[in-house]
Amino acid sequence: MTSKADSKPGKTSSKIHATALGGLESIITQLPIIQTLPVPAGSADFEQKRALALEEFASKVPVEYRIPRHYIESPPKDVTPIPRECGILDDIELDITEQYDATALAHAIAAGKLTAVSVAKAFIKRSIICHQISNCLTQWMPELALKRAQELDNYFSRTGKTMGPLHGVPISVKQHIPLADTDSDMGFLATKAHNPQDSLLVAILRSLGAVFYCKTAQPQGIMHIETDGYHGRTLNPHNINLSPGGSSGGEAALIALRGSILGVGTDIGGSIRVPAGFVGIYGFKPTAYTLPMREFVNGAFPAELNILPSTGPMCTSLRDVDLFMHGILSQQPYIQDPRVVPLPWKGLGTDLQVSKTNRLKVGIMFNDGVVQLQPPVLRALLEAQKFLQVSPLVEIKPYKVPSIHEILGMTSKMYVPDGGHSVRQVCEISGEPLHHLTEFNLEGLEPVDAYGIAKLRVSRDAFRIAFSEDWAAQDVDVILSPLHVGPAAAHDTAKYLAYSALWNILDCPAIAFPTSTKVGKKGTEHYAAGDEKPWNELDAHVRALWEEHDYEGAPISLQLSARKHHDGMLIAALDMMRDVLELEQ
Amino acid sequence: MTSKADSKPGKTSSKIHATALGGLESIITQLPIIQTLPVPAGSADFEQKRALALEEFASKVPVEYRIPRHYIESPPKDVTPIPRECGILDDIELDITEQYDATALAHAIAAGKLTAVSVAKAFIKRSIICHQISNCLTQWMPELALKRAQELDNYFSRTGKTMGPLHGVPISVKQHIPLADTDSDMGFLATKAHNPQDSLLVAILRSLGAVFYCKTAQPQGIMHIETDGYHGRTLNPHNINLSPGGSSGGEAALIALRGSILGVGTDIGGSIRVPAGFVGIYGFKPTAYTLPMREFVNGAFPAELNILPSTGPMCTSLRDVDLFMHGILSQQPYIQDPRVVPLPWKGLGTDLQVSKTNRLKVGIMFNDGVVQLQPPVLRALLEAQKFLQVSPLVEIKPYKVPSIHEILGMTSKMYVPDGGHSVRQVCEISGEPLHHLTEFNLEGLEPVDAYGIAKLRVSRDAFRIAFSEDWAAQDVDVILSPLHVGPAAAHDTAKYLAYSALWNILDCPAIAFPTSTKVGKKGTEHYAAGDEKPWNELDAHVRALWEEHDYEGAPISLQLSARKHHDGMLIAALDMMRDVLELEQ
Repeated sequence: MTSKADSKPGKTSSKIHATALGGLESIITQLPIIQTLPVPAGSADFEQKRALALEEFASKVPVEYRIPRHYIESPPKDVTPIPRECGILDDIELDITEQYDATALAHAIAAGKLTAVSVAKAFIKRSIICHQISNCLTQWMPELALKRAQELDNYFSRTGKTMGPLHGVPISVKQHIPLADTDSDMGFLATKAHNPQDSLLVAILRSLGAVFYCKTAQPQGIMHIETDGYHGRTLNPHNINLSPGGSSGGEAALIALRGSILGVGTDIGGSIRVPAGFVGIYGFKPTAYTLPMREFVNGAFPAELNILPSTGPMCTSLRDVDLFMHGILSQQPYIQDPRVVPLPWKGLGTDLQVSKTNRLKVGIMFNDGVVQLQPPVLRALLEAQKFLQVSPLVEIKPYKVPSIHEILGMTSKMYVPDGGHSVRQVCEISGEPLHHLTEFNLEGLEPVDAYGIAKLRVSRDAFRIAFSEDWAAQDVDVILSPLHVGPAAAHDTAKYLAYSALWNILDCPAIAFPTSTKVGKKGTEHYAAGDEKPWNELDAHVRALWEEHDYEGAPISLQLSARKHHDGMLIAALDMMRDVLELEQ
Repeated sequence: MTSKADSKPGKTSSKIHATALGGLESIITQLPIIQTLPVPAGSADFEQKRALALEEFASKVPVEYRIPRHYIESPPKDVTPIPRECGILDDIELDITEQYDATALAHAIAAGKLTAVSVAKAFIKRSIICHQISNCLTQWMPELALKRAQELDNYFSRTGKTMGPLHGVPISVKQHIPLADTDSDMGFLATKAHNPQDSLLVAILRSLGAVFYCKTAQPQGIMHIETDGYHGRTLNPHNINLSPGGSSGGEAALIALRGSILGVGTDIGGSIRVPAGFVGIYGFKPTAYTLPMREFVNGAFPAELNILPSTGPMCTSLRDVDLFMHGILSQQPYIQDPRVVPLPWKGLGTDLQVSKTNRLKVGIMFNDGVVQLQPPVLRALLEAQKFLQVSPLVEIKPYKVPSIHEILGMTSKMYVPDGGHSVRQVCEISGEPLHHLTEFNLEGLEPVDAYGIAKLRVSRDAFRIAFSEDWAAQDVDVILSPLHVGPAAAHDTAKYLAYSALWNILDCPAIAFPTSTKVGKKGTEHYAAGDEKPWNELDAHVRALWEEHDYEGAPISLQLSARKHHDGMLIAALDMMRDVLELEQ
């Protein structure tokens, strides 16, 4: 590939893209997108449908929003400077997309300093730039967004009031979540369907004044903690040889590149937190049924029999987490989705009743007893410990996790109680290839019958009880832990998800937050003396990954967790620790 | 059979009992108990084990606590006067067992007016009398109870303080709920196991000062709304040809006879409310996971995949419901059972914010759209409507239930997703006969696979959503409804449970409460003019039952329901309506 600035998109570039995707020659016009590792190719029929879907997307993208060709042909490892450098955004657009979080943006619009249209335009433009360098979008809706923004501006002009606390705030939405007049799917091309109406959560956000302008990438079956779907592979903007995590990886890449400042993800094993952590933003997985997920899943989702998914915000500040939660929960969503538990939301306003004589007790979990942390994660955790040690309001304790070996052995069955039958079936019928991580997830699984599922739940509940009692015995309020065994994973290698999935198995609220730690040059950081000997095969495998891949530039995030249904308290606790941990917002 | 007062129990009477149970001759010594319809006989091996279990029970019952033989041999239809008349209880014991609810009893003991030992003795004696006339107990533990009561009295003497708000209050416990040093089972003799420790809820009650003295009968598999188990058949004390309901029917019969004033039941289709209603006491089924059910189920219970069970109190006053709930929830049970939702309990103290200009909106549901009410239930509901019409604080509205036909068609599958395999297996192996209602429950069922169960849950959730939205559209706060299609059912006929199970399918809190309506002499009350034509086969069947059986003396209860997790508000709402409805307590 040659570096050729300002080249126009066309057949040649679409060939590059198609090659990256499935190794097929293609004569159709697709949007050139940086790709580093192809996803596998399916049947000819499937590849034709895939190409059509990508061509349809490309047809909406004006030439003036297409980034210079050299970025595609010889991309830098770190693509984060491209949106600013590529010359497509003017200074005002750069300011709008880079200088605000959602709270500040809502304030600026409510104060008349910015219009909803100007904000929408900036994010519409920036998001499509981000897509070309990370493959983070599945849909892009400039017309819908501008129409909506204009309505909001008109309302504001007419009444002098905002529609709600999110008036004019652009929000990105994960692909499987229905949003009116767009498509959604369950991570397989064949499941794509048009949605005439918003899902409940989207409708509430819309009623609060949100502007929707794009939908974001998710992996096949929405069950990887990477983001490799029929749209191709989503890249980590900090290092395109790494994954942005998944399954809400499109959100993560987009927000990291500030093509969005607030997105909606879902998490059943880490799918909000892992991508947030892999790119260095906030990602909050509430206790299940805290936020409404009505209409989020089209059809049945057997994993839910054992482990409940949860939806939550991905964003650039902690106060935006609170803005999102408070906004939705102020609307009594339990009326329209009775699965939602009607607990009052206090969030940042929660009284922690903490003082110098009654400090917040923070347990620090250094490992899960199965796989040790890759060096930079351990470094970040040690640094956080050092920071917290000097806080007069925090008491830190080492936190020892009860054995997870037994429950870990059941996790695959719990996630895939039908033995993968429904996944294999949809792929067989449509010709969609099973991706590497899908194969990995389904390997060796058999269907579990009703009694077997009931037994799995008994084991799960016994684990939850043991964990909760042990938590009480260790006498801590919140638990600080790694959210993943390492920094952002190299593509197709994120297979060990116990650090994130633990909190799904427990159904405890957990939030990923960025630290100032980043991974340096390859080969400059090693497992500490004394930690060299692998604990087991899994541990050895994770060590080998660390030696093999180049993680340079990957940010390190950590995770804070609270007891089930103590979601508001968790946010308040992290807020209290923010200054000490030197978090930006 | 001849009526022979003061006859001693012996071989003859045990033969009567064994005959009633399974038609077998028996030479062992069992306690004579009134029985009106035998349960089926199993294998010889099983019958031997059954006889041994009953003999073991009988061996603990002193001769002086055995009621005169004529009661057994020619029992009256209404056995409620027997405990008072039989001559075993003295005036003080009659006073203790008849003049207090749990709240008053706790006050009297805390004030030093009664000792825990005197109270325990009275209930120990009365309960075993009740058992002989209704077959309501599975275990009877006089020694354990007296030892405990003595400890409580000693503590009170020593410290001048009570152990807690239930100090000295006797509490009866349903058989499947583990209680230290007794047995529990899942409604099959083969599942009986010794419990060295209390289940969490029992441990909390004990820590609050409760005294445990008996365990109560439940039906085979704990899945009938009657109470026919390996112990035999439990009778409705108001009319022994009727069922006391189930599955917590032992509690109901015992409390109706004041052999207990406060019991613990469980409810997955009506199992607290139906028995409470069939005998005319209070029975509260909270939203699932409001109270802890840790250790309540030994092994896996596939029904829970679709419909969650709930535990709650059965008692003689509304304030005892509040006493029970408040006592347990004050102990933060969510720490030891993280399934418990940590909602604060306000109960009777809930501020309903009701006034003459902002009345409590009560929807009255007159039928479920499938089966019309038997005449006395409709009469009770109309009377309640008449009472409520004059209340200045209540606004009544007719409440039309959304169609339940579709969800009703799935209910059997939801309760028995394994197609009955586990039930059939335990019976086949142990030789326990399938009871009539068990056969009925399992009829025509096939196992449902993981994907099928997930689909059932999708349908269930869609129903919940539709119901909740419709509830909001009909704009009512609480719903007053029948809890069963008729009064107490004749034995082996309680097959239509939609009126109670509706609130399990919805997972809404619901409480059964007694009215002053009773069923009169057979043949004196008929379906109203205009209601004569059956709506369908189910409706015709329920009508035929009304014509066929003699329900004289059966009390009529009603049911009040609130939105999911609005449990405290429900109790407060019923309390507000208590005077108007002319409820006793």
